[in-house]
Parts: sequence; C-alpha cells; structure tokens
Amino acid sequence: MPKISNKGLQMPESPIRKLVPFAEAAVKKGKKIYQLNIGQPDIKTPEKALDAIRNHSIEVLSYSHSAGFESYRNKLAGYYKNTGLPVEPKDIIITTGGSEALLFAMGGITDPGDEVIIPEPFYANYNGFATASGVSIKPIQASIDTNFALPPIEEFEKLITDKTRAILICNPGNPTGYLYTKEEVKKLADLALKHDLFIVSDEVYREFAYEGAEHHSIMSLPELAENAIMVDSVSKRYSMCGARIGCLVSKNEEVMKTAMKFAQARLSPPTFAQIASEAALDTPQSYFDEVIEEYTLRRNILVEGLEKIEGVKVATPRGAFYCIAELPVEDADDFAQWLLEDFDDQGETVMVAPAAGFYSTPDTGKNQVRIAYVLKKEDLSRSIEILEKALQKYNN
Amino acid sequence: MPKISNKGLQMPESPIRKLVPFAEAAVKKGKKIYQLNIGQPDIKTPEKALDAIRNHSIEVLSYSHSAGFESYRNKLAGYYKNTGLPVEPKDIIITTGGSEALLFAMGGITDPGDEVIIPEPFYANYNGFATASGVSIKPIQASIDTNFALPPIEEFEKLITDKTRAILICNPGNPTGYLYTKEEVKKLADLALKHDLFIVSDEVYREFAYEGAEHHSIMSLPELAENAIMVDSVSKRYSMCGARIGCLVSKNEEVMKTAMKFAQARLSPPTFAQIASEAALDTPQSYFDEVIEEYTLRRNILVEGLEKIEGVKVATPRGAFYCIAELPVEDADDFAQWLLEDFDDQGETVMVAPAAGFYSTPDTGKNQVRIAYVLKKEDLSRSIEILEKALQKYNN
Repeated sequence: MPKISNKGLQMPESPIRKLVPFAEAAVKKGKKIYQLNIGQPDIKTPEKALDAIRNHSIEVLSYSHSAGFESYRNKLAGYYKNTGLPVEPKDIIITTGGSEALLFAMGGITDPGDEVIIPEPFYANYNGFATASGVSIKPIQASIDTNFALPPIEEFEKLITDKTRAILICNPGNPTGYLYTKEEVKKLADLALKHDLFIVSDEVYREFAYEGAEHHSIMSLPELAENAIMVDSVSKRYSMCGARIGCLVSKNEEVMKTAMKFAQARLSPPTFAQIASEAALDTPQSYFDEVIEEYTLRRNILVEGLEKIEGVKVATPRGAFYCIAELPVEDADDFAQWLLEDFDDQGETVMVAPAAGFYSTPDTGKNQVRIAYVLKKEDLSRSIEILEKALQKYNN
Repeated sequence: MPKISNKGLQMPESPIRKLVPFAEAAVKKGKKIYQLNIGQPDIKTPEKALDAIRNHSIEVLSYSHSAGFESYRNKLAGYYKNTGLPVEPKDIIITTGGSEALLFAMGGITDPGDEVIIPEPFYANYNGFATASGVSIKPIQASIDTNFALPPIEEFEKLITDKTRAILICNPGNPTGYLYTKEEVKKLADLALKHDLFIVSDEVYREFAYEGAEHHSIMSLPELAENAIMVDSVSKRYSMCGARIGCLVSKNEEVMKTAMKFAQARLSPPTFAQIASEAALDTPQSYFDEVIEEYTLRRNILVEGLEKIEGVKVATPRGAFYCIAELPVEDADDFAQWLLEDFDDQGETVMVAPAAGFYSTPDTGKNQVRIAYVLKKEDLSRSIEILEKALQKYNN
C-alpha cells in the first residue's frame, strides 16, 4: 500500500473535535449537552445578507475574479476606512474564509524549515496551517495571571533566529479573549521593524471588544506598512461562519503579488457567499450594538459564575467570545471526556474544549479549558451550574 | 523590508491570465474579443440548483461538517453508484472546488522534495499546487500526433525514483480533451500497484465524453482501491464554476483520515454552495443530453474549421471542452499577444491560451494554443474565420 506523507502523519487533529465521538454517544443515550466548546455563534445572520442570496438573479454561476468581486473589494475598503484603517481595494484579496488567508500568508512568506513565533495559547488550527506549509511554530507562553497579555518583548527577541520570518498574533485572541493594547501592538511593530519580520495579525474578532475598549489593528501603524499582514473574515462579525469568506490585507505589494499567484491557482472564492458578504456590509450599526450588548452580558454571566466556583481561575476576556479557565483538575482532557461519558445533572451536561490543544509546548495548560460564550444567557447560567456540580463530583 | 518566500517567488503565474492586461487594453480601444482562452462555460446553471438558493430558510449561516453536509455526501455517493462506481459516503470529503481536493491530495501523500509524474501538457494550476506543496513535477510528453494519448508505460517507468509518490492524470484531459481508454487506465493501475504509487485522477470533466465514448474512472478498478484518489467538481458538470464545490474520493482509509485533518483545519466547505450542489444532483438527464449535444456540435465546428486552415494541426478531443491546436507560428505567446494588441477584423479579434504554459518541459509546445469551445456556435464559427485571417496577416 502506498504511504501517507510525513506531513500528513504530523498534521494535528483538531483538539475541539477529539471529543465529538463521546458527545455523539452521549446524545444517543439521551443526554442534553450545552456546547461551550465551539465558536459557532447562535446570533442571527443579518437579513440583508440572507436576502441578497434569496434575491439573486444568477443564470450562469461563473468564477469571480481570483481576488474576489471588484465591487466587494471596493466596499470592503470603505468599511476599513470607516474604522480608520488606510486600506485600498488593491490591498485586499478575498479568500475562502480567514483560513485561506492564513494559508496564503504562510505560503507567501515562509519556506519549509522556516519559523513563526506565536504567543500561546493560540488558535489550534495555526498548527495545521504551519504543518501544511512545513513551518515550525516557536511558542511564547502568555500567562493566565495577566489575562494572557503580550509576553515581555525580550522573550520574543530570544527566539528570533535567521529562520524566523514572522510573528503571528490573534487580536482579540482566540482562545484567550485578550485584546492587545496600543502599546503592545507598537512594541511588536518595533520588534518587526528591527528584525525585518512580518507581523501576521488575525483580526477576525476585531468587532468584539468590550467595556468600550478600542481595537488596535496592525494596519493602523503607517511605519509598519511593509511588514503588516492582516487576516479577517465575515464568519464571526456577521455570524456567517458557513459563508467561508475572509480576506488577506496588506500594503506590501510583493506580498499581494505573491498571494495573488496562490489565489489564481485556486481560481476564485465562492460567488454566493461573496454576494452575501457584500450585502452584509450594509448591516446597520444597531445590529452590532445589540450583538456586543448581548456578548457583554454573556461574558459577565460566565466570568462571574466561574469565579464563584471554588478552585476555578478565569482570565477575564476583553474581546472575542472565549475565555480560558483553570479548573481544579489535573487533566482537563480527562475531565472533559468524563463530563460527556460519565456525568449528568438531570440528564444534562456540558462540553468544553481542553486548552492543552491550544498550546504548542507539550504538557502545558493541562488544567485549563476554553469556554465559548456563544450560548444564550439562561443556557450559560445553567452550564455554570452543571460545571460546578460536575467538578464537585469529579473531585470526590 | 521582510522577504517573500522562495516558494512564493517560484509560484507560477497562471498562463491564462498573462494576456489579461492586453485584452483589457484592447477592450478599452473598443475591440470585441471572442474568448477562447478560458473554460468558463456559457451554459445555464440548472434551475434546481439556483432555486434551492433562492428558497433557503437559513437564519444562522453556520459551519457545516468539515467533510461537507452528510445529506450531500449520501446523495453524491448515490450519483457515483448510478455511474457504476462503488463509492460510499465515507469515501467522500466535500472540498472548496476541485482545487482544494488537489491540495488535500498533495498534502496527504507528498512531502517537500517528493515527485509526482504527470503526462504533459497538463492543467497549468497543477504547477501551483505542486509549488505550494514543495513537490517536483516530472513531466512525460504526450504527442499531438496521437491526440495526446497516454505515453508508453516504459516512459513512466524510467522516471520512477524512490521520491515518486504518485502519477497525476486528468481524464478527460484539460487542455488536451483526450479521454483515456480502458486499457490505458488499466496500464496505469498495474504500474501503480507494481511500484506502490498513488494514482490521482482529476475527473472534473467526467460527464463530457463525445461520440458515445465511455469514461473510465480510476475508481472503477477494485484492485486499485488503496491506490486510487479521485478529484471531482460541480464546476463544469452543472456550469457552477463560481460555487467552489468539489470533492476528494478514495477508498483508502488512511488517505481519507489524513485529508480530514486538512479539512478540519479549514473548518468547512461553503454552505450556500453545498445547498446548490446537493440540489443540482436532481438535475434531469435531459439537461446533460442537451449540454453534450451542444458541446458535440461546438467541437465539430471548431475541429473542422481549424483543420481547414492551412498549416494548422488539431488534436481531436473526445472529452472535456478544450483542444490543442498547432499553429503555423514560431511563438504562440507572441501571436496571442499580437492578436489582442495589433490585429482586428472589423473591430473583432480572438483570445487564445498559448499552450507552452501547460507544459512543464521548457521550450515545449511553443507553437501550440489551447482553445476552449465554450462559446455558442455562431461565435465559434466567427472566431475561426478571425483566426484564419489573423494567421494570414501575421505570417506576411
């Protein structure tokens, strides 16, 4: 039998999906599961986006331009300008989800054997894209005690070698919910300029900042124009995860020219989803105000609820819709599986994402879990109640 | 300024797009261009597919399963069974276009430095996917004199090294239109079994076989089950290029398990397009009968027309909707550009794809062009007339 590639063998399995078979078995047994494990919001997609699809007048569903529809790129540049970012249509390539933008970025700036520095814990699929590109991730540990703030810049400097090509951040962070300050972004920029590195900034949660906090985009620093690559997506902003539309943004012409070659090889991003995404840009501000208000309430319920449980430590998130909690257990993997297999409270249980899968350093974050606050308030309250009872039982 | 990757620098530009700036300039000058250069059919997308989108009842546009909707995979397996192929839902991963299926296949079975053998001329984007994966393409030249039939199997055997992981074919072929015979497919299978290689078969044009010829899928050989990987797409079958839905099909469980890890990293294929693609499976046979009849007429007009032009040699296509023609010119690249820049017949000209970009061997196919017969009959006839006049003028 012919052999699978080493790359394929090393390709990590999604840590979020490892528990799925246990969840499926639990559902079969009639258990109700509150899913705190995935970032699939329950928020309704804007009507304007859904209507644009209902009212399409397509007769021949053709390829779009490889960089995406011109009309969409123009309008999207307008959106960024409205948020204060100097983005022109030529700085944008529409991609199939933020995922493809990450792949194009990796492909354009790294070769097999190169290194990318990423503060951990980080979005687990970065591992997959790095493996697919033959790139090594060099993690720098952020701490739950600082809510996962940027680690000291000296720690980054220690890791920089002649193989280092980029620093990758997620701002606000999945899985941490951390929102980088203006000073932190500036420090990273100075470091990138000093060492001729790219900063790839995954800003798919850019709208989700709480307590009136401001989001500081990597595109906001003129001096970093040649070094900055932003990854964005409609998935979370408009609750359109299934559209699979994102974009790669950079003012570096060589980066864009190179990314276009990757884009041309795969022909074009999906047409229907681009139509919906373009229409979504007309979503009124009131939609976002309501969404942010709802997430703020959910965040508060979750953080306050978790903090009341004995032995639980929470990193308070100021952005995105995740938080990392440290639990009074030794192995959150085992606990998460036990929650599905062996525990229920009146037929109900919760599903959490063990955080070890978000760390690249082995045996790290083993007592942490990532919790997504994408459920409605009463379900979140009930989930916390279940979690508290489960921890009591598990530890007896 | 930070550096682009070597991979990015080596990434080939699409040969079909090189002429686009010249075409744009010609259109600006008021020239009408008959586009024979791209495989974008003018055939209408089935109403069932377009209606399914119009009638969607989505409120939250969520991720689908990473392998695609179960309902779609089930129905698609039924489609393959109807065509006589033993494909089960578990053998299918829905991908974002055939392009992504090719990427998953490459990623799953090759490591940087590995080799894949491909008969040339071949679909130019294979170069892009190979470069992205760090893989070397080893071409074997097929000849216009045999209509680009499979080269002798001894030629393949000569190229096999310990780095060879797969043979990649396109059946029926883009850009050749060649439909492999049962004997040719069997010979490739025997070779793959002898040397423990994968056969990756790009069958996105599988429905487009003319003169009653039968298509022989790589999935039709039970003895090859562990070695066969099929790439398919809805793009051409239903004139749904913009949907970006394809699939990877294999009965090799290790291949599917590995491809699923790649699929999970990018979360899911596009939802709207899956809904349309699932509905498209209900398209009545009469749609295909009409389409095949139309393409047969177009093919006949094109081939007969081209054969009448002095000095032109044509490889008669028996599948897909392309043909390669050898022109009485030294450099088809120059001729194609001249057609756009310097020639017109009553304000009209044609755009063709120089074939050199479909060869991996340097300086090969320089007097050949690929012509797509995706235009309606009268436009094709007019295009041939223009081409004939242009050749006369160019050669004086």
